[in-house]
Parts: sequence; structure tokens; C-alpha cells
Amino acid sequence: MTLKNKTCEPCRGGVPPLTLDAAQAMLANVPAWVLNASGTRLSRRFEFTDFATAQAFAVKVGEASDTEGHHPVLSYSWGYCEVVFYTHKIGGLHENDFIMAAKVNALG
Amino acid sequence: MTLKNKTCEPCRGGVPPLTLDAAQAMLANVPAWVLNASGTRLSRRFEFTDFATAQAFAVKVGEASDTEGHHPVLSYSWGYCEVVFYTHKIGGLHENDFIMAAKVNALG
Repeated sequence: MTLKNKTCEPCRGGVPPLTLDAAQAMLANVPAWVLNASGTRLSRRFEFTDFATAQAFAVKVGEASDTEGHHPVLSYSWGYCEVVFYTHKIGGLHENDFIMAAKVNALG
Repeated sequence: MTLKNKTCEPCRGGVPPLTLDAAQAMLANVPAWVLNASGTRLSRRFEFTDFATAQAFAVKVGEASDTEGHHPVLSYSWGYCEVVFYTHKIGGLHENDFIMAAKVNALG
């Protein structure tokens, strides 16, 4: 099953976050996303030609994430929207973050 | 005229940003907003009890700012929305930023 068709499983906390190596390996499945240096955050910046389109995209991502119960930080202004996934309960990345990144790529 | 009823004037660049003293003086007009240390950014964090309400608020702020042609950076996730005003063309704050902050307070 491709990543974008998977469903986020409830994340209970207590499980370890993905290691940096594991996160880097999964990155190949989500083109254009980047990891921070410690491998604890997964982000992608989308560019737009105005404010309204950037906001509409944020809302589309937000709705998809609310459906899965796994929410990014969405930051946008004129011409861009940045999406950052991170799993608070485990202080790093979970497969859920990559599933959501793949779903966002399918929206873009 | 109260700040919230004013309209953002086109900002041409080339005009100096508000001084830190001037920005601090204007802060009294926009309750709950905070300045960064150098007085170049004006921000307020709003708290919510879920994701959808935070996103709906971001959109309301976004629409008001698009009407004025003066856009904040909007950052939100589950339970909060942060609004940051800054005038790129002058590298700091302009009266427009305080006008928008007052308009956002009127929405909240």
C-alpha cells in the first residue's frame, strides 16, 4: 500500500520516535519534503502567486489533517504556505507524519 | 477615528519604520499584542479548543487582511493561531500593522 493511502494510527506516546536514519530513509517516499538536522521535524514549503491561494491550500491541508486527527503547524502569508509535521507525544517523527506528508503531496 | 476603523494606506517603502519608542507607545491601542525586543514585529497568540476553530479564525484574519492588502504571517495548529504583522518593504512596523492588529482584535 502506498503511503498516501494509509491511515494514521493512533499514536499513544511511549513509543520511540523514528531514528534519524529511519527518517532519512522514509524521506524518499515524500518528494520535496525536508527533515531538520536532528530528524525530528518534516516540512515542505509551497509557493503561490497570491495570498488567497496560499490560504486556500492551508485550509485544504488542514481539513485533510483533521480527518486523520494528525495536525501539522501551518504557516502562510502572501505567496507561500509552509507545512510542518511533528509528533508531540513522542518528541519526534512517527510514520504518521510521513503518511500525512504523502497525503499533502497528493493535494498539491 | 479609532485604529480599527482606519484603512491601511499603501506603503511605498522608503519611509522609515516606527521607532521602538513609537511602537511601544502604539501598543496601548492593541490590547494583548506583543512586540519583539527590537520593535520590528507585532504578534498575538489566540487559543482555541480544537483545530477546526483555530483554522476558521486564521481564515477570518486572512480575509480581513486580504481586504486591506496587508497580510500577516498566520501560524496555526491544534488549539492555537498566532498572527504576526511586519511590513517587509520597510523592514519593521508601520501604522498599518497596528491598524490590522486592531481589526483582528475586533474579530476575536
